[in-house]
Amino acid sequence: MLRGVVLASRAALRPVSRQNSYSFARFYSAAHTVPFTADTYSLKVQRDSKYKKLEESDIEYFRSVLKDDNYLITDKLDLDFYNEDWMRKYKGQSQLVLKPKTTEQVSQILKYCNDNLLAVVPQGGNTGLVGGSNPVFDEIIISVANLNNIRSLDTTSGIFKCDAGVILENADNYLAENGYIFPLDLGAKGSCHVGGVCATNAGGLRLLRYGSLHGSVLGLEVVLPDGTIYNSMNALRKDNTGFDLKQLFIGSEGTLGIITGVSILCPSRPTATNVAFLAVSSYEAVQKVFVGARKELSEILSAFEFMDGKSQILTARHLKTDHPIESGQYPFYVLIETSGSNRDHDMEKIETFLGNAMEEGLVDDGIIAQDETQLRNLWTWREGIPEASTAAGGVYKYDVSIPLDDLYKLVEDASERLNAAGVVDFDSDSKPVVEAIGYGHIGDGNLHLNVCVREYNKDIESILEPFVYEWIQEKKGSISAEHGLGFQKRNYISYSKSDVEIAMIKDLKNHYDPNGIMNPYKYI
Amino acid sequence: MLRGVVLASRAALRPVSRQNSYSFARFYSAAHTVPFTADTYSLKVQRDSKYKKLEESDIEYFRSVLKDDNYLITDKLDLDFYNEDWMRKYKGQSQLVLKPKTTEQVSQILKYCNDNLLAVVPQGGNTGLVGGSNPVFDEIIISVANLNNIRSLDTTSGIFKCDAGVILENADNYLAENGYIFPLDLGAKGSCHVGGVCATNAGGLRLLRYGSLHGSVLGLEVVLPDGTIYNSMNALRKDNTGFDLKQLFIGSEGTLGIITGVSILCPSRPTATNVAFLAVSSYEAVQKVFVGARKELSEILSAFEFMDGKSQILTARHLKTDHPIESGQYPFYVLIETSGSNRDHDMEKIETFLGNAMEEGLVDDGIIAQDETQLRNLWTWREGIPEASTAAGGVYKYDVSIPLDDLYKLVEDASERLNAAGVVDFDSDSKPVVEAIGYGHIGDGNLHLNVCVREYNKDIESILEPFVYEWIQEKKGSISAEHGLGFQKRNYISYSKSDVEIAMIKDLKNHYDPNGIMNPYKYI
Repeated sequence: MLRGVVLASRAALRPVSRQNSYSFARFYSAAHTVPFTADTYSLKVQRDSKYKKLEESDIEYFRSVLKDDNYLITDKLDLDFYNEDWMRKYKGQSQLVLKPKTTEQVSQILKYCNDNLLAVVPQGGNTGLVGGSNPVFDEIIISVANLNNIRSLDTTSGIFKCDAGVILENADNYLAENGYIFPLDLGAKGSCHVGGVCATNAGGLRLLRYGSLHGSVLGLEVVLPDGTIYNSMNALRKDNTGFDLKQLFIGSEGTLGIITGVSILCPSRPTATNVAFLAVSSYEAVQKVFVGARKELSEILSAFEFMDGKSQILTARHLKTDHPIESGQYPFYVLIETSGSNRDHDMEKIETFLGNAMEEGLVDDGIIAQDETQLRNLWTWREGIPEASTAAGGVYKYDVSIPLDDLYKLVEDASERLNAAGVVDFDSDSKPVVEAIGYGHIGDGNLHLNVCVREYNKDIESILEPFVYEWIQEKKGSISAEHGLGFQKRNYISYSKSDVEIAMIKDLKNHYDPNGIMNPYKYI
Repeated sequence: MLRGVVLASRAALRPVSRQNSYSFARFYSAAHTVPFTADTYSLKVQRDSKYKKLEESDIEYFRSVLKDDNYLITDKLDLDFYNEDWMRKYKGQSQLVLKPKTTEQVSQILKYCNDNLLAVVPQGGNTGLVGGSNPVFDEIIISVANLNNIRSLDTTSGIFKCDAGVILENADNYLAENGYIFPLDLGAKGSCHVGGVCATNAGGLRLLRYGSLHGSVLGLEVVLPDGTIYNSMNALRKDNTGFDLKQLFIGSEGTLGIITGVSILCPSRPTATNVAFLAVSSYEAVQKVFVGARKELSEILSAFEFMDGKSQILTARHLKTDHPIESGQYPFYVLIETSGSNRDHDMEKIETFLGNAMEEGLVDDGIIAQDETQLRNLWTWREGIPEASTAAGGVYKYDVSIPLDDLYKLVEDASERLNAAGVVDFDSDSKPVVEAIGYGHIGDGNLHLNVCVREYNKDIESILEPFVYEWIQEKKGSISAEHGLGFQKRNYISYSKSDVEIAMIKDLKNHYDPNGIMNPYKYI
């Protein structure tokens, strides 16, 4: 439950190589001061006294390992950049950032920290949404930003190898030059790291087409808490010799080790992309359109996003533009993207599919992008929702997975609860809540429920929680489809995992990190 | 290194629901007696005295759990069926097969075995190629054959759930009726189990298109050695709440627990399949054709298999048929399969692609199947190679992954060594070796090196080993691309895994199975 106005970020301060059409510029607001996480959550979390406090002699040791003062950050203002998350919601109190240049240095640092009970937080692009890569107290931040070399691309097989700190967009641009595509895309691609997306098992926009990182990552280089370097970077597409150890680290959110290198299988880059935007009159019809698209567009379907009508009204209000479907307001909209190797074939498939869907009465109206500008514009109506959600003041955000049949019911039920409590007014400022809206990657069963508010207050929170978590638990859904648990959802894992699973996770954590130095106070 | 004439199997005795076009009928040869593994390998492996020997009281306990005498097998002749592998190369001496009907029964059985130090071997369809699912000594065989219910299919999302003992072909037929396809196909599909393909991380014919099971399996139900039931069957396509524990069991070959249930994401079933068979004059050209196919056929490419010229001559000799490409003998052949949703589009893409490839001089001749019969016939020239390889007497088989550039060099180097030793004669019976041939899933970097022989002898073996393993190690390849390690490759893991990786694998094994009751004497 991400909450807080997404007022400001600092992506613009970072090495953003190129904004892609789906990413939105963020800005840094100096006016806003971020409270310390330790103060905000003082009742929930205390510093564990078993961890050593940083001393000058420790810094001296790290300096001797890194051999360059630029690779250690101790200046208070400079530290803020790493202590705070990009939403400026969480803030740690670390006094030291280490930016090793080699895997060997990461190993020496971790071994020392483990031997001396110094807690650490691994950090990639610092673009997470759950406070997972920021310290809570005085943990040392180990940034992999200086591990930023592309290692190799096998242009026959598409196997790409790079350091963990390579920015996703840089990796994808390099692949594009060679006819390949990174099998994952994110709004934060200009800042997030390849290692970070693996550590968090990021989902994003290409999952429907290229599947999860558990399938596409072929090997990892990981430094374990005791300094051991695990290396499976040479793994080929097929290797059935023993347990697939790398899988443990994909999605472990920095609690088991620090990923320093990634080997990943990349598909050929599609040469034709098409987008259609449709108006649909019921959620049942949305599901039917999805089944039809999976069947008829099959191998070229690369995105199937849905948005409810209210999300589009809010987005139109925020963008001060007319909606692309002018004929009226519909309860649901669907964005379909195809990616293939032959534009004519793809267009013919889309037109046939849409013709059938309209004939069956599933689609009421629709538009197909005729050029790249229109294509980007249509995506704006999906990608602009997060910003539009916060325009009135703030948003309570829930990123969940639910079986498709029940997916939208959560929005309806949440809306009903809020309306019953008399706190909703969509048009005037008389009530604290604007509306509960829903949208998301329907192809992945992933709903974003946004409760758009004019102010934060405890009453709204108590209407929504634990109601939303209990609702998801009852439907056997997941309380975090793609954002992870991090600090934010540390107390909620039991809503999605059984006691046996939680015990096994804790057991593995203790097994690999008996001193608990890796990313403490987070979800384990 | 699979060796032994693949003379006979007993698939015909099992519930084979329907032979698909790629699977070959197997037969049971009563004449052939399989020696005990314990005798054949007496110098390499001894029974561990820490394991209890089965007593009547143990059987009584199991009878009380299973409540049906049909679920316990103690008859000597009936036991053979489970003690022997389908190649009739390995034979254990188990005196008891248990065939539980429920996961709860599996749990009670394992708990008892763990408490009493009774070693066990989990068994699925018993179609493995490395002796992984057969006992070595007197381990109790736990067959999941009675766990054979399809649990559910969500026709909107394609999420399919079933018991581990469901036969792959039955699962795929059920999916076909609903417009879906199991994302994995194997020659042994008429016998192998869904749980078994997960436990061994099977690769097979659809990997190029649908990726590995690590990406498509969404959840597992697994009984751990102490009887604990781990269950992630309700996982949705996206769930980022904690470590992805199920991954540990995918490819663990029954050494960590017994898989009892599988949840897997299934793609829409393609409605159009096309096959082209091409003659190519060099391995370099094969690689270029592959890169072109990946690019131009992109989203519809579902198989890219290559075969060398000698494999085709042997297959023609064995099938007593003319090769489909009549114009002459070429050094290499390629089979390309596409699967899509529109036959006209796919055919147009193939024709354009082949036209370009021929214009560039990459393809010398080729044929495209015009109907289902021709399609099956073309596949025969790839799928018939294993049988043809053994026609002269036997075959030394190596299933390896190698970076694509070097893939075929292993066949050349092995052939050169054999020729230098003067043991090869392709046409007459004067020498023990017919030839070293190569073929495989080039799309996956997976080569099958078959050394076809007229007899087994130590001299040939010493020419090939450790030469082949050292060669693969030097190229950083894998000694088992898809067959696993099992008993056969138990001593060779160090050729593909580093000391750190082996230590981590052993450590995890000891952590989850401290008594070592799960599938002992195998690769860990």
